[in-house]
Amino acid sequence: MDETTQTRGRGGARTTDVMSAIRAKVAGRALGPGDRLPSIRKLAATMAVSPSTVVEAYDRLAAEGLIRARRGSGFYVAATTMPPLALADVEPRRDRAVDPFWVSRQSLDADAAVLKPGCGWLPADWMPEAALRRAFRALARSDDSLLADYGSTRGSLALRRYLLARFAEDGVEASIDQLLLTGSGTQATDLVCRFLLRPGDTVLVDDPCYFNFRALLRAHQVKIVGVPYTPSGPDVARFEKILAAERPRLYITNSALHNPTGATLSLQTAHRVLRAAAAHELAIIEDDIFADLEPERSPRLAALDGLTNVIRIGSFSKTLSASVRCGYIAARPDWIEHLVDLQVATSFGGPSPVATEVIANVLAGGGYRKHMDELRQKLARTRRDLGRKLAALGLEPWLMPRGGFFLWCRLPDGLDSTDVARAALAEDVVLAPGNVFSVSQTASSFLRFNVAQSTEPRMWDMMRRALGSKMRQ
Amino acid sequence: MDETTQTRGRGGARTTDVMSAIRAKVAGRALGPGDRLPSIRKLAATMAVSPSTVVEAYDRLAAEGLIRARRGSGFYVAATTMPPLALADVEPRRDRAVDPFWVSRQSLDADAAVLKPGCGWLPADWMPEAALRRAFRALARSDDSLLADYGSTRGSLALRRYLLARFAEDGVEASIDQLLLTGSGTQATDLVCRFLLRPGDTVLVDDPCYFNFRALLRAHQVKIVGVPYTPSGPDVARFEKILAAERPRLYITNSALHNPTGATLSLQTAHRVLRAAAAHELAIIEDDIFADLEPERSPRLAALDGLTNVIRIGSFSKTLSASVRCGYIAARPDWIEHLVDLQVATSFGGPSPVATEVIANVLAGGGYRKHMDELRQKLARTRRDLGRKLAALGLEPWLMPRGGFFLWCRLPDGLDSTDVARAALAEDVVLAPGNVFSVSQTASSFLRFNVAQSTEPRMWDMMRRALGSKMRQ
Repeated sequence: MDETTQTRGRGGARTTDVMSAIRAKVAGRALGPGDRLPSIRKLAATMAVSPSTVVEAYDRLAAEGLIRARRGSGFYVAATTMPPLALADVEPRRDRAVDPFWVSRQSLDADAAVLKPGCGWLPADWMPEAALRRAFRALARSDDSLLADYGSTRGSLALRRYLLARFAEDGVEASIDQLLLTGSGTQATDLVCRFLLRPGDTVLVDDPCYFNFRALLRAHQVKIVGVPYTPSGPDVARFEKILAAERPRLYITNSALHNPTGATLSLQTAHRVLRAAAAHELAIIEDDIFADLEPERSPRLAALDGLTNVIRIGSFSKTLSASVRCGYIAARPDWIEHLVDLQVATSFGGPSPVATEVIANVLAGGGYRKHMDELRQKLARTRRDLGRKLAALGLEPWLMPRGGFFLWCRLPDGLDSTDVARAALAEDVVLAPGNVFSVSQTASSFLRFNVAQSTEPRMWDMMRRALGSKMRQ
Repeated sequence: MDETTQTRGRGGARTTDVMSAIRAKVAGRALGPGDRLPSIRKLAATMAVSPSTVVEAYDRLAAEGLIRARRGSGFYVAATTMPPLALADVEPRRDRAVDPFWVSRQSLDADAAVLKPGCGWLPADWMPEAALRRAFRALARSDDSLLADYGSTRGSLALRRYLLARFAEDGVEASIDQLLLTGSGTQATDLVCRFLLRPGDTVLVDDPCYFNFRALLRAHQVKIVGVPYTPSGPDVARFEKILAAERPRLYITNSALHNPTGATLSLQTAHRVLRAAAAHELAIIEDDIFADLEPERSPRLAALDGLTNVIRIGSFSKTLSASVRCGYIAARPDWIEHLVDLQVATSFGGPSPVATEVIANVLAGGGYRKHMDELRQKLARTRRDLGRKLAALGLEPWLMPRGGFFLWCRLPDGLDSTDVARAALAEDVVLAPGNVFSVSQTASSFLRFNVAQSTEPRMWDMMRRALGSKMRQ
């Protein structure tokens, strides 16, 4: 039964691959309306599949209306076909459980009863709730222009000044014209990608990396290449080889408290990465969204590079509020100037002035540093507790992070995290299976745990059952 | 002196045109790193300029590092060149005063002392201030999850339900799975463009149209074609011809209270537009951001079409608050499903839950309909007053709109609105010169006035001076 499914799955997968290849060519406009498709024989040879697989793929695409057969002369793109950008179809649809959208959609749309040890944020009651309430009360008394008007194109000057002061503590030197506030950290990354990338460009990410980098890059229709991540940063020898061979335009990474591994970039790796990047004119987005969760500062690409080829990105969603949305971009002043235009064109201005006011109010309050000190201590305790509980189940962290809220854990031999995640979802628990983070799909034995979202006894009962049944001991 | 400047300007403009053409090819990846540029003779013939103009353009591009000369073999794209997307350079940089970014950047970044009769929003004290303050106070008392957590991928269910009820009043039938909340109205338009468009596609807009449609479409690197707008909608004969000749993928328009003219789509024009659109598989974005300002309902493409090829877009920035940002997309359910993925990838979820809560709170309050009734009456009075004042200065409205806050006015003969806008800016008054709205650059005798932002005596003193000196009477 298992065998049959697999064989059928493989045959179907080949047909789906051919369909995806044709869809991608049409979506990317490499094949336009009315263009002739490659002959069945030729495409079969190119894709190393049987001619009957191509015939089936073409028939199914014709049934969908994307292409049309003309008697005696082959297949053509339908004259009126202009398919929209369906991100789910950009790559062959393998298993929805390892799709990079799976964890985000499941956790964002989960109702209150669902447990989310796979999600990427802290529980609401770990956030500075009292300070947020104070900030909203202050807002209700503020100037009518703040409540009703659009904001300036670069966003709140007060918040940008606060950020510059924080940057100086991190060793990142910048001036006020190097900062742009955005609608969120993800929007900041997206805006930089829109600025730097064109369809077909190559982009380098860590393997494993934050799954939404993969989703975001699909929207930019670029080629995604992964570099293996080590406990001290990307594997530099591989990094250099990929730069020489693939000439990527951009590298996206987290340096401190790397997502999902919790690893820390070493100073030596940082230096070598920047040297290679400069030699190949590679731009780097350093997503520093977990910066405030570090117990003490670690090396930053942005600090070494001085924001020449490095773009620093961050937000307040992990430590202050994810409901009040705001992110930032720190980069070269001439790039910021163009990014302002791009943000006006695509969002009509910067982030919500109401949002930036609330954030500035919380950050300026005396209680925020104390809140963060307590939060870091609480996370350290919870991390140790979780590590022990996981060890008892045979799950081993890849490394013990210095801070943050992720543990990247290897499952006992023979277990596939996608199977475990599927079983967990049936019991209303959203896990984060390894392959959603992996470009090369080589992380099937890993799960990412959010230590602050893994405290409910019900989750542990479920994990014991899921692992037990899978291990058949 | 004037003549000299003009001649020098023209010569420079030709060189700049050649430079822009090459930059656009490199930006669009039609010319890749290492590719040979067209020969000087050939490009001179193609662009109908002298060979010396091409030589100068190539020399200047070489000085910028974009291209390199190889002795005896012509010019090549620099091997490492991957220029970022500078929207200001997408079209030849003519006059910054008629750049589509000019009005937005000037009005968004204006300090409190600057008058903004050219801007596109109401003064803060025309907005429902008391209701907003109440909503923020309620927020300060709400659930901690609302204050700190990410929201769902489609945004607040309560607000979507409210919108569906409003849609029914407008004759637009839709179900809950046809609605997606977004970060703003502009982001809604941008998301649909990302879904439907690829670089090189053709997009149709009204001429004149809202200037930010032009800015937004530059970011999508599409060909923009304008259709003349009449007092009852687009010129249908021209519309049909353009569809046949150019096969645009998308048409973006405002049906009720058209921006900048204040015109209203007639039922007959709506019907013909939709018939032509269906014949050519044209998608239509109907930006209905001014809907609530209409005195009584007028025809909507979305109501006739039933959200098949029409996508309805809107926001709350014009009548409730532009600081609390939120927009929406109503479209086919299968398109919404893909747009959810696209918004997760590029914004990590929907709009700020705090923002949607405030908006839902204000809309549900009993006072909002009364506020809107009063606002419409106030606008009608102010519009009549402004019409009289403008007439006294020799400015004539193209038509008297049924509602909204814009008057699209023709200047006395011989006056150029770009000159007037430049003179006004020197006196801290931001005007909206006609050509920022015009793809064909044929609106140089028009200015768009925001009636609610044109009440200050200082503005009228300035206008009298500016017109007087220009008219030399």
